[in-house]
Amino acid sequence: MEQQYVVGVDVGGQTSKIGIVDARGVVLVQSVIRSDNHVEPEGFVSELAEAIKALIVKSGKEGQIRGIGVGAPNGNYYSGEIAFAPNLAWAATAVVPFSKMLSEALGGLKVTLTNDANAAAMGEMAYGAAKGMKNFIMITLGTGVGSGIVINGEVLYGSDGFAGELGHTIAIRHNGRQCGCGRFGCLEAYCSAIGVARTAREWLEMSDEPSVLRDIDKITSKDVYEAAKEGDKLAIKVFNYTGKILGASIADFIAFSAPEAIVLFGGLARAKEFLYEPVLNSMNENVLSLWRGKVKLLFSQLKESDAAILGASALAW
Amino acid sequence: MEQQYVVGVDVGGQTSKIGIVDARGVVLVQSVIRSDNHVEPEGFVSELAEAIKALIVKSGKEGQIRGIGVGAPNGNYYSGEIAFAPNLAWAATAVVPFSKMLSEALGGLKVTLTNDANAAAMGEMAYGAAKGMKNFIMITLGTGVGSGIVINGEVLYGSDGFAGELGHTIAIRHNGRQCGCGRFGCLEAYCSAIGVARTAREWLEMSDEPSVLRDIDKITSKDVYEAAKEGDKLAIKVFNYTGKILGASIADFIAFSAPEAIVLFGGLARAKEFLYEPVLNSMNENVLSLWRGKVKLLFSQLKESDAAILGASALAW
Repeated sequence: MEQQYVVGVDVGGQTSKIGIVDARGVVLVQSVIRSDNHVEPEGFVSELAEAIKALIVKSGKEGQIRGIGVGAPNGNYYSGEIAFAPNLAWAATAVVPFSKMLSEALGGLKVTLTNDANAAAMGEMAYGAAKGMKNFIMITLGTGVGSGIVINGEVLYGSDGFAGELGHTIAIRHNGRQCGCGRFGCLEAYCSAIGVARTAREWLEMSDEPSVLRDIDKITSKDVYEAAKEGDKLAIKVFNYTGKILGASIADFIAFSAPEAIVLFGGLARAKEFLYEPVLNSMNENVLSLWRGKVKLLFSQLKESDAAILGASALAW
Repeated sequence: MEQQYVVGVDVGGQTSKIGIVDARGVVLVQSVIRSDNHVEPEGFVSELAEAIKALIVKSGKEGQIRGIGVGAPNGNYYSGEIAFAPNLAWAATAVVPFSKMLSEALGGLKVTLTNDANAAAMGEMAYGAAKGMKNFIMITLGTGVGSGIVINGEVLYGSDGFAGELGHTIAIRHNGRQCGCGRFGCLEAYCSAIGVARTAREWLEMSDEPSVLRDIDKITSKDVYEAAKEGDKLAIKVFNYTGKILGASIADFIAFSAPEAIVLFGGLARAKEFLYEPVLNSMNENVLSLWRGKVKLLFSQLKESDAAILGASALAW
C-alpha cells in the first residue's frame, strides 16, 4: 500500500500536538499530550511514541505512514538533536538525540526534526500567508522571539543547523534590557510576550499615567492586549513601542536577505490591530531606500497549532 | 573549438580591470581601463567592449570565450542592471541595462553581472580563504562596506537581487553618525575607509592626545594605518574601536545565517594586524553562546583585483 500520510508533531513547553496529515495538507485527526510532566527525555519520548501509535490506529492509516516530522524548540535539522532548550524540562540541560530515540520507539519510522519556528515557516509557505513565496522571513512572537528564514524556497539552516536566531540579534545596544540568554538588548527582551509585559510594568512604575493595567497584579501580554482593546492609552503605547523596535530590527533583516515578505506569527501576532501600523511604519522608516514600501508585512493566516503541525509534517514528505 | 576561457571584469569607481581566465582560475592576461572619464553609460560600455576585444586578441583565444562575468557596484544579477551607483558617474543617477549593452557591443557574447562584493565572495570561494566552504559571509571593507553572503555554496541574491547590504545595517542606533545613504548609524559610517578616517579626525578634535596624525592635513584610513604601524597610540585605538563595532555587528550576522566563517576583504582588511583581535574578541563577546569561539574570522588571501576578476569570471562558466 502506498505511504501517503505523514505525522506532524509540534513539541511545545506545556503541550505537544500530533496530527495525521495527507498530501494536500489536511489534518485528518489530531491529539495533544502534556510535555511538562517529564524531567527525563526517555519518559517523554515513550509517551509521545504511544500517543502517535494510538493516533495512527485511530486514523485507520496503519502501514500508510511515510514518516514523522517534528518541530521543537532548539530542534536541530542536521543532528536530529534537541539541545539545551530552556522551556523543555527534559532537554533543558542536556543534548537529547531526539530523532533517533523517537524513531526507535516507533519501530524505525523515519523522524525528521527542525526547530518550531522553522516548522511554522514551512507550514506558512505550504498552506498559509507565504504560499508560493520563495523568499520570506517568519518571525514568531511568542514567549520568546524566534524566526524561520526561507531562501529560494528552502528553510535556511546554515553551517550547523542553528541559523535564524533573529530574536537574539541586538535591538537596543545602549543600556539594553537583559535577555534570558544572558546578554543585553536582544530583540526578544522587547518584542516577546514577556517583553511586552515587562514594558508595561516598567512604564506603570515610571509614570503616574492612569491605566486599567494598574489594577492587575502580575501583568501578562494578554492583559496588555485586552487593555488596548478597551482603549487604554498606556497599553496602546506599549504596542506602538514594541512595533517600533520590531520594525527597526526587521529593516536590518531585510538588508540581509532581501525577502519578499515578513510574516509575523505566534501569540503576540494576534494583536495585529495594534502592531501592524507601528511595525510597518518603523520598518519603512528604517530600511534602506531601495526597499522602502516594497517588502510586504503579513500576519500568519494559520491557527498556531495547525501551522506547526503542518510545517512539521512537510518535513516528513 | 571548445569554449574553455571566460572573461572576468571588475568595474570600480576609478578603474576597471579585465582578465582572461581559464577553467583552473589562472588569469592568462589582464588589462585596466579608466572608469571615471565617462558620464554616459554608452561611452564607458563602448570603451570597455573595445578593451575586452583587444585583450581576447592578445590572449590568442578568439572563438574560445564562453562568456563575460562582471562585478560592479550595485550590479544586479537578476536584471543585469547597474542602478544608482554613487561611485560610477555614468550610472549614478540612472538605471543602466549594463549586461544587455555590453553583450550587444560584443556581438552577442553572454554577459552575467553581479555586484562587486558578491563577485569577490565567489572568487574567495573558488580560489581563496573560503575555498570549499558552503556557508560564509564576506565583508568588503573599502571606501564603503559591502557584503557577499554565501549559503549552501551559492551567493544569496534574495527576492530582488539586492540581498547582502550588510554595510547598511544599523551598528549604532543611539546618536549614530550619518551615512552616505542618508540614514544614521550604518556599519559603513564606522567600518569603511571613510569611517576610520572620520573616527580619527573626530578623536583628534575631541582630545589633546598626542599623535603623528596631527601633522596630516586630510587624514585618510591609510594614514591611520601607517601611524598605527609606527606605534601611534591614538591610531591603534581607532582600529580597536573600529574592530569592536564590526565584531558586534558580525555577531548579529552570525545569528542570521550561522556561517562557518566571516571573511574580511578590501583595502581596510590589509590592516589585519590591528583589526584581527579587536574584531574576533568583540564578535565572541557579543555572539549568542552557542556560536562563541566557533565561527572562523578570516582575511582574504587573494589580491583584491584577482578576487574580483576571478569571482566575476566564475559567473561566466
